[in-house]
Amino acid sequence: MSSQAGEKWKGYAVRDIKNWDKFEVIEFHPKQQEDYDIDIKIEFCGVCGSDVHTITGGWGEPLLPLIPGHEIVGHVVRVGPKVTSFKVGDRAGVGAQVCSCFKCAPCKSDSEQYCLNGVSTYNAKYPNGDVAQGGYSTAIRAHERFVFPLPKELPLEEIAPMLCAGLTVYSPLVRNGTGPGKRVGVVGIGGLGHYALQFARALGAEQVVAFSHSSNKKDDALELGATDFVITGGDDFAEPWKGKLDLIICTADVSHGIPLTDLITTLGVHGHFIMVAIPDESLPSLHSAQLLSNGALIGGSHIGSKKEAIAMLELAAKKKVKSYIELLPMKDAGNAVRRVKDNSVRYRHVLKYVPLSSSSPPTDAWCA
Amino acid sequence: MSSQAGEKWKGYAVRDIKNWDKFEVIEFHPKQQEDYDIDIKIEFCGVCGSDVHTITGGWGEPLLPLIPGHEIVGHVVRVGPKVTSFKVGDRAGVGAQVCSCFKCAPCKSDSEQYCLNGVSTYNAKYPNGDVAQGGYSTAIRAHERFVFPLPKELPLEEIAPMLCAGLTVYSPLVRNGTGPGKRVGVVGIGGLGHYALQFARALGAEQVVAFSHSSNKKDDALELGATDFVITGGDDFAEPWKGKLDLIICTADVSHGIPLTDLITTLGVHGHFIMVAIPDESLPSLHSAQLLSNGALIGGSHIGSKKEAIAMLELAAKKKVKSYIELLPMKDAGNAVRRVKDNSVRYRHVLKYVPLSSSSPPTDAWCA
Repeated sequence: MSSQAGEKWKGYAVRDIKNWDKFEVIEFHPKQQEDYDIDIKIEFCGVCGSDVHTITGGWGEPLLPLIPGHEIVGHVVRVGPKVTSFKVGDRAGVGAQVCSCFKCAPCKSDSEQYCLNGVSTYNAKYPNGDVAQGGYSTAIRAHERFVFPLPKELPLEEIAPMLCAGLTVYSPLVRNGTGPGKRVGVVGIGGLGHYALQFARALGAEQVVAFSHSSNKKDDALELGATDFVITGGDDFAEPWKGKLDLIICTADVSHGIPLTDLITTLGVHGHFIMVAIPDESLPSLHSAQLLSNGALIGGSHIGSKKEAIAMLELAAKKKVKSYIELLPMKDAGNAVRRVKDNSVRYRHVLKYVPLSSSSPPTDAWCA
Repeated sequence: MSSQAGEKWKGYAVRDIKNWDKFEVIEFHPKQQEDYDIDIKIEFCGVCGSDVHTITGGWGEPLLPLIPGHEIVGHVVRVGPKVTSFKVGDRAGVGAQVCSCFKCAPCKSDSEQYCLNGVSTYNAKYPNGDVAQGGYSTAIRAHERFVFPLPKELPLEEIAPMLCAGLTVYSPLVRNGTGPGKRVGVVGIGGLGHYALQFARALGAEQVVAFSHSSNKKDDALELGATDFVITGGDDFAEPWKGKLDLIICTADVSHGIPLTDLITTLGVHGHFIMVAIPDESLPSLHSAQLLSNGALIGGSHIGSKKEAIAMLELAAKKKVKSYIELLPMKDAGNAVRRVKDNSVRYRHVLKYVPLSSSSPPTDAWCA
């Protein structure tokens, strides 16, 4: 299809990392329209910790002006001529990735999130130079492979944060064998952790242990499916759990605050500690001997594949996984990111887009 | 059986970590004799990097005086009344572990090397307080479970270093799926690395990539079975290998000298980097993001089980795995540990015990 160089959409952008909580409505050019592309009119967008790391410069200098947001849901308003799995009017979502090479081993084996030429939903450029902007905006355009169909059983606003926060914990839970008989630890009860507890139970884990630095979230954790709640404050919290867990999903978005060496001792032989948060700072340095007594492995994990997103949403619908969200109008994005930064959200902000009229196509869209 | 409090054996001991290369013949009490114990008259003992870390105090203050050595082979000279699998005169070996609890999940699932109450071959105490001393000595006593039968096809002196160095790489190769179609990297071509290359090939790996900091060992590496040799010196050595390997076994006994972040990029999705060396210092600190692009896992591994030792020796005999050793009389232990410390051995020292007469029982034994 022809390039739509003239197209202009609108979104809430940060212009400067020093003023990371000052959002300004800007116009932006969506990516060039291609045959497999789908345009989605955005209704809700979750506010992810990644948004804050990016706009504050914690992960390095971002591409400015920058419109964050990669937990995006809405309805399809246009499909490219080769799109087969969506039609105008369908509910659809986009997570933290909008493109990949489609050719490499990861792309060909349902691990496209590990494509070395993947394009993130924002703070990224397509190979042709088009800038990818996120979901604090009127609309998003993405290749069909990166657009997820959404189950009708779940409300749109509850699906939004599942598309990054949910998927980011669901994928490593599944890839590291969560299921009947397994004992799973979840470190950090926040946006990601509140899904990790629920999905671990939904996948059939026998034991789900919530590790938190204080007792504040104990009631929530138990309600979310934790079988045990452990406060990581004390020196000897890990002692009763030595060798007891198969897997730990660490969602704590801090580095030196994580009692990493103690947590590792709670793993059984060759247990996995999977870090899904990406703190600004490096992790505490480890001594080989600390990985030796139980042969533990420490790994990273990056969002999830489309196949996993679909399976996750199906499981969420079937097992009634809930999103604990606080809704805000999109114009309050600054307030939302501040609350993510100070870690006071329970457990996810979702921004609601307020359209001019329900029939506005994305090219006419504006930001409330 | 009754305690043999009066028994005294002899060995070469270090008395002081400052004089870690000054060995002195001392008398020591072997562990109390029990029903499942086997006494082995030592003929050869390999010199392991662990011996040097321990006697130099690199891993902390050792129990002094200390007789190192945990690559021990010889012949059985006495068996306890409940021993069923060995008889006097059998060839037998002992590796880096002499006891465990026999009851825990690891002990019950052929992972006794991960028993949290395991007893190391030296620098360790049994639960009753008996001190475990190593194989730079006349004899060793250990529970049947920690005594390995030795295949007749292999010379004793070549078996010795397999019992720690060989097993330490064999176990993680097997546990991390080395076999046909797999692509394995080996970092560091020394005592452990020279076995890792051979066992990776013997297990059927499709590609075995030797990573070394210089070209010095290229010919040896190729002879040992490496399909590729990569010098890790340059800035961009990892670039052509990005995403190409399934597993890396890191035997390099340094910490900050290992180009860890570059090596990790050579792993494919969820590839494993297994550290089998235990440098004195901590590993370089990592950023979560460095584990995220391929979902890699970094793990430790601790020697191997008896079941694995038997399988390894069988494979070594079948596939003609060779030990590249330099033999020295046991009285030259000081020279041997100095050469391990300065990393100039190719690839393993083995100490030969010189007995007074071939019929000396261990209680009469002495050190040449």
